[in-house]
Amino acid sequence: MSIVTCDMAVSVDGYTAGTDQRMDAPFGDGAEGLTTWMLDEPQAHAAEIGAITAAGAFVMGRNMFGPGRGGWDLGWTGWWGAEPPYHAPVFVLTHHAREDLPMEGGTTFHFVTGGVDEAVARAREAAGDRDVAIAGGAATVNQCLAAGVVDELRLHVAPVLLGRGERLFEGVPRTGLVPVSVRQTPLVTHLTYAVARAQPSSRSGDDARAQ
Amino acid sequence: MSIVTCDMAVSVDGYTAGTDQRMDAPFGDGAEGLTTWMLDEPQAHAAEIGAITAAGAFVMGRNMFGPGRGGWDLGWTGWWGAEPPYHAPVFVLTHHAREDLPMEGGTTFHFVTGGVDEAVARAREAAGDRDVAIAGGAATVNQCLAAGVVDELRLHVAPVLLGRGERLFEGVPRTGLVPVSVRQTPLVTHLTYAVARAQPSSRSGDDARAQ
Repeated sequence: MSIVTCDMAVSVDGYTAGTDQRMDAPFGDGAEGLTTWMLDEPQAHAAEIGAITAAGAFVMGRNMFGPGRGGWDLGWTGWWGAEPPYHAPVFVLTHHAREDLPMEGGTTFHFVTGGVDEAVARAREAAGDRDVAIAGGAATVNQCLAAGVVDELRLHVAPVLLGRGERLFEGVPRTGLVPVSVRQTPLVTHLTYAVARAQPSSRSGDDARAQ
Repeated sequence: MSIVTCDMAVSVDGYTAGTDQRMDAPFGDGAEGLTTWMLDEPQAHAAEIGAITAAGAFVMGRNMFGPGRGGWDLGWTGWWGAEPPYHAPVFVLTHHAREDLPMEGGTTFHFVTGGVDEAVARAREAAGDRDVAIAGGAATVNQCLAAGVVDELRLHVAPVLLGRGERLFEGVPRTGLVPVSVRQTPLVTHLTYAVARAQPSSRSGDDARAQ
């Protein structure tokens, strides 16, 4: 059955990015270590990377797609070059409407102005029997957790305390989780939790996952 | 070799206690789940509990010992009754000097007014060849991490997002960690990290642990 998943690379103290995020350092200063496991050792983490890219549709925040409003005006096409790694529809949350943007390799960016609920509903429809992945950043993940639309949370915890930056779980109310699995390598600890639904969701039929 | 350890029960979003901590709810509202693994299923977590209680001396903050200043004046002897579970010297950080307080079963509370460095130094001396454990609460752990005196951090992560409360790692600067072990049960995920020392400590000879 199709579920909504969320993969986040995070420090032990709960940051998903450092400070001063910019073009040449999209994760911000000091936060390179959060994704070392994925970029430097993909073979050792093939199962987790495969689970991320298996989704049938993605939802992401505007900052994950591009740097501010300017990018829209200048024809910005995302951080990933001509062939983004999604190979599926990607629904970008924004306040600024824009035409669909088809890229090479099966990725099409759709720009959604109706908020998280609309983005997730359209992603579910596009994904069919496959999962929908909330791709980040932290603000979007927090919004989706607070809205109760995430079924499975997969934290990729890098062994570092960052001390400052963008915080995961900010503004997310009390939520029950159920441990699903854990795996540790020298570069990362993979923690998977099912999200316990506080109340039945009218959008989906998968409330059997709730505690 | 003797090291300084720190065990903390924490939620997935990094809280060590809920809000409104008081006499009949010392962890605060909503945070009972943080210690369920230890209180309800001690057999299933005997190794982790044993590692905590094996320390030769403990350091704790004033709030972990008692509720505010009043407790001192009224002859407060801690939360734990006549025989506290430490069975070793416990060094309590406080601004209010007080005579040593011997309890049944080998626990003696010593009240230290000279700050973390003095408390850890006295605990090291008292522990001899055994480890020193930083017992909490979060503010004391954060102070010890910031001071660079912790060698091993053992997080006991309960599967819940609390949303608010007392935060672990607040004010702790950027720090490298090295994954040591992980173990998951339905009630908790045990994560052990060695703390990478940024610079040699003049207090100890165990810098071989540093990265």
